[in-house]
Order: sequence, then structure tokens, then C-alpha cells
Amino acid sequence: MLSQTVEYALRAMVHLAASSREARTTDQIAEATHVPKAYLSKVLQSLVRAGLVHSQRGVGGGMTLVHTPDQVTILQVVNAVEPIQRIHTCPLGLSTHGKNLCPLHRRLDDAMAEVESAFANTRLSEVLAAPGASIPLCESAIDESPSPVGQAGEPG
Amino acid sequence: MLSQTVEYALRAMVHLAASSREARTTDQIAEATHVPKAYLSKVLQSLVRAGLVHSQRGVGGGMTLVHTPDQVTILQVVNAVEPIQRIHTCPLGLSTHGKNLCPLHRRLDDAMAEVESAFANTRLSEVLAAPGASIPLCESAIDESPSPVGQAGEPG
Repeated sequence: MLSQTVEYALRAMVHLAASSREARTTDQIAEATHVPKAYLSKVLQSLVRAGLVHSQRGVGGGMTLVHTPDQVTILQVVNAVEPIQRIHTCPLGLSTHGKNLCPLHRRLDDAMAEVESAFANTRLSEVLAAPGASIPLCESAIDESPSPVGQAGEPG
Repeated sequence: MLSQTVEYALRAMVHLAASSREARTTDQIAEATHVPKAYLSKVLQSLVRAGLVHSQRGVGGGMTLVHTPDQVTILQVVNAVEPIQRIHTCPLGLSTHGKNLCPLHRRLDDAMAEVESAFANTRLSEVLAAPGASIPLCESAIDESPSPVGQAGEPG
């Protein structure tokens, strides 16, 4: 149910969020997120149009987040590329149903409301900073393997 | 997030569930569900392939449900036409993530799990029989209007 476009938009936003305020080119984002460049360009255009990403042309230019990661929700990213469609009126156009959804459409809309709420309550900063978990888009030390003695790395 | 195909498949199944064991032609289902016939035919083929609908050719033939409405969940219908995609391994193919999803993919999969669970726990019979609600696919008496005296209708 989550499209490839949604997945790619989230990867791009997470990458930019992890890049602080440093501008990233489409090439750099494509490499980091494992997204085909042409597809990524379209996704980035949608994110720019939605006011989530700033695009600076020219030498030293690139993409940056407009807001800080704690100001952006997953829902904003999803809605920028593929808005969650709530059911507000009877999809069959039945006049006596109107806004009073029948049990079928009520249950479908309830499910969409759950997803919408879960995404609205998750900020980019949260998925970057969850303690003890692997980091989105990044290879990380495997939990099961013992740490090499004397090689404690920098915190990721 | 719920596609047109899912919506149409559910309408077809609800119509057949409400038709008891009486066979319905594609024309009849298309009219009752407000779905274009060509589109409906493809949806019905998927439902037949999934073992949810039986198709009987010839005079007096048509479509019937294979199971009774209390044996079929919304999830089975959705999965027959557009399976809910859970995230089982890292979509980026990061070897150190593997099945240990990062916080981004964990949250996305949690949302899909919520939807899957809600649909698995709703049977066709429930959306047909919810008390006091309007009936799927059918025009119904408007709740706000007073009941005509002495004209208590048959139960729907």
C-alpha cells in the first residue's frame, strides 16, 4: 500500500535530515538512498513544490531541508508525493449515504485514519535518533557480532 | 493508499454477499456497484483466481461467493487484488540491517501491520449487518426524516 514513490521520498528526506544543513546534489542523494536518479529527480521536484526541500542551483548548490528534522512529520512527506486519501463521502455517490459512511467505507476510512495518525505523530528526527536501533540508509555494526577489542568506533 | 481496484473488489464482494447464493452476472454486479464493466471483469477474474468467487458459465450462470460472508475477511479481498506489502527486510538491501528494520522502516511496517490487522478482523458479514447504519451499495432511508406512521417497512 505504500508506493515506491513514498518510500523514495522518505529516503531522500531522511538523507537530507542526516546531512544537517549541507547541500546535497541529486547524484549524492541517489547514491546514498539507492534510488535511480531519474526517479529521484521527480520525487525531489514534488518535495520542493511541497515546500519541504530547498533547491539551490549552481556551483556549490544542491538540496537542503527547508525545516529542521524535528519540524517535519512522515505524514508531510507522504502527502507531498502521494496524499493519503481519506473517505469523506460515499464513493458510490449514493445520496442517502453522503457523509454518513456505510460500515464498509467507515472501516476503510478508519484504517486510513490510523495510518494518517501514526505518520502525523512521527517526525524525521525520531527515525534518525531512535536509541539502540540501526540508522536509516546506513550500514551499521551487527549487534550479534562481538565488538573487536580496542576498536570502539565513533558513535554513528 | 487504498486503490480503486481494492475499492471495486470490495464492492463486488459486498454485492455478492448481499445476494445470498443467487448467481449474478457481470452486468448485474457492474450496475449495482457503479463499476465500469471492463474494469470489473478484471477484478472479478482476480477474485476467482484467489478462490473467493465462483464463476459459472452459460444460461443461468454468473458469479457467486465460494464461502459464506462470515468466512471472508476484508483482508482476503484486499490481498486477492493488491496484497498489502509488509516490510520484512531492509528495502535498501543493507546487509547489516537485514531483518532488523531501522526506525524508518519499522514505523512504516507498523502502520501496514495496523491496517492488515484491522482488515483481518473484519468479515464481510459484519459490514453488511452493522446495526443502525446505512447498507453498503444501497440507497437507504435518511435517518433525519421521521418514520412515516404505519409504514414500518421490512427489515433491510
